[in-house]
Amino acid sequence: MQIIRQIPEMQALSEEYRRSGKMIGLVPTMGYLHEGHLSLMRDLRDQCQLLVVSIFVNPTQFGANEDLSTYPRDFDRDEQLCRDEKVDVIFYPSGLEMYPPDYHTFIQVDQLSDVMCGRTRPGHFRGVATIVAKLFNIIDPQLAIFGQKDFQQVVIIRQMVKDLNFRVKILTAPIVREADGLAMSSRNKYLTATERKHAPKIYQSLRQAEKLCQRGILDPDEIAEKMTALLNKIPQVRIDYIALVDPETLIPVEKIQGKVLVALAVYLGSTRLIDNIIINA
Amino acid sequence: MQIIRQIPEMQALSEEYRRSGKMIGLVPTMGYLHEGHLSLMRDLRDQCQLLVVSIFVNPTQFGANEDLSTYPRDFDRDEQLCRDEKVDVIFYPSGLEMYPPDYHTFIQVDQLSDVMCGRTRPGHFRGVATIVAKLFNIIDPQLAIFGQKDFQQVVIIRQMVKDLNFRVKILTAPIVREADGLAMSSRNKYLTATERKHAPKIYQSLRQAEKLCQRGILDPDEIAEKMTALLNKIPQVRIDYIALVDPETLIPVEKIQGKVLVALAVYLGSTRLIDNIIINA
Repeated sequence: MQIIRQIPEMQALSEEYRRSGKMIGLVPTMGYLHEGHLSLMRDLRDQCQLLVVSIFVNPTQFGANEDLSTYPRDFDRDEQLCRDEKVDVIFYPSGLEMYPPDYHTFIQVDQLSDVMCGRTRPGHFRGVATIVAKLFNIIDPQLAIFGQKDFQQVVIIRQMVKDLNFRVKILTAPIVREADGLAMSSRNKYLTATERKHAPKIYQSLRQAEKLCQRGILDPDEIAEKMTALLNKIPQVRIDYIALVDPETLIPVEKIQGKVLVALAVYLGSTRLIDNIIINA
Repeated sequence: MQIIRQIPEMQALSEEYRRSGKMIGLVPTMGYLHEGHLSLMRDLRDQCQLLVVSIFVNPTQFGANEDLSTYPRDFDRDEQLCRDEKVDVIFYPSGLEMYPPDYHTFIQVDQLSDVMCGRTRPGHFRGVATIVAKLFNIIDPQLAIFGQKDFQQVVIIRQMVKDLNFRVKILTAPIVREADGLAMSSRNKYLTATERKHAPKIYQSLRQAEKLCQRGILDPDEIAEKMTALLNKIPQVRIDYIALVDPETLIPVEKIQGKVLVALAVYLGSTRLIDNIIINA
């Protein structure tokens, strides 16, 4: 396994693979890898000759008051996990390598970036779209895979790929959960013991939405109200948003009908967690 | 020579060339080709195996009150000119092919896009950066060439290429002028006979700046004043801006020293023309 920190070296390697007609697969991550990330690597491993995992805590997707400085990092552990998954390359650039001081260019995906997480985190998806475009140009993969936990991110990246005509196929993989249902996230590390104990209620609220729908309750407001009641049983909880939206346009639905994305963000203490489920009526 | 109107067809062709290690060169244009465009084609012709000229009047770089609907078009003539230059492919997509109804993604190059032409034409360079990125992803050239008449455009595209890590080398070619000095432009067609008669004063004002500098006048305000006086001899003229700036950062210089870009935009009647020169002290 190679660890590459310089953009020109990564570009030269991927160009060599591309020229010989080989498949390059990319798993973009911010490191502090968990089973969710590993499942993405496993999904791609056999579909490509060069499996690249990028590890970069992207500063442009963090707001001024967010957790950029405290975001968990453990490269040695990540390196071993990548080796175990037979990753070929870790692309592990510095902040300065990706954003030199005279950096000026950003990609904005309008509308889709302004709702849900984008409302609470202005500029977040601009940073996401920008770094992903850079990674596509640096690594030039035919395949890139993203976890469905960041559902809105995937919608935005698909839109960007389509709009800017990137030659990459976007794959997704299901959310990987702890035994008690909590969606895996590097940020789970922030949780206190008490917060961790209550955290499974997040997924329970999503399952409740699914059950309500199965029982014929198709009013999104009614579902959101019942989810709110359940989430409010968590001490110190603050609900950022609960959204019942079209999974492609992210526009709120007026009635549950066909596939609907139920997505939420909640703060447990100072930790912001997201989760989602697709329900179908 | 092939004329390709569909994105997937263009991408398939360029992928075939790329795979066999061949060089692709791109001359992006809005059509209504003149000697300036042809000089770009001639510069690239022998450097690549696949010479692609794109012809697309890009709506996203026109403001609401600008000349999108009247911008001159003559595809049959353009086609013949391209044949004469031994162009391999004209990429000639429709507006809908490039911007389907659910299009959402734009590229912004901060700071550089807000000055000079960007001040008068808000959103213009966002449209330019976006369409050029799309063309790069569709045509995947190793080389792309732009005319220096659109100096600010070139600076912005270079910045975008560097920032987003596009794998394309940006070349430029000098401004091609009419015998009387007027820079060639598709928009010269708009000029009335009287306007056309006075139009060479634009370039004369730039040459005057050069001469003043050679005579040791190094104060940009003094130079701009003298240029203004000369330009104001044109009837119905309206000066949009005169800029004496660093050719890389586009930041106004306080004194002429080293290479300085002298750039201007003026309206002759309703026609907005731009021109520039590099002076060196």
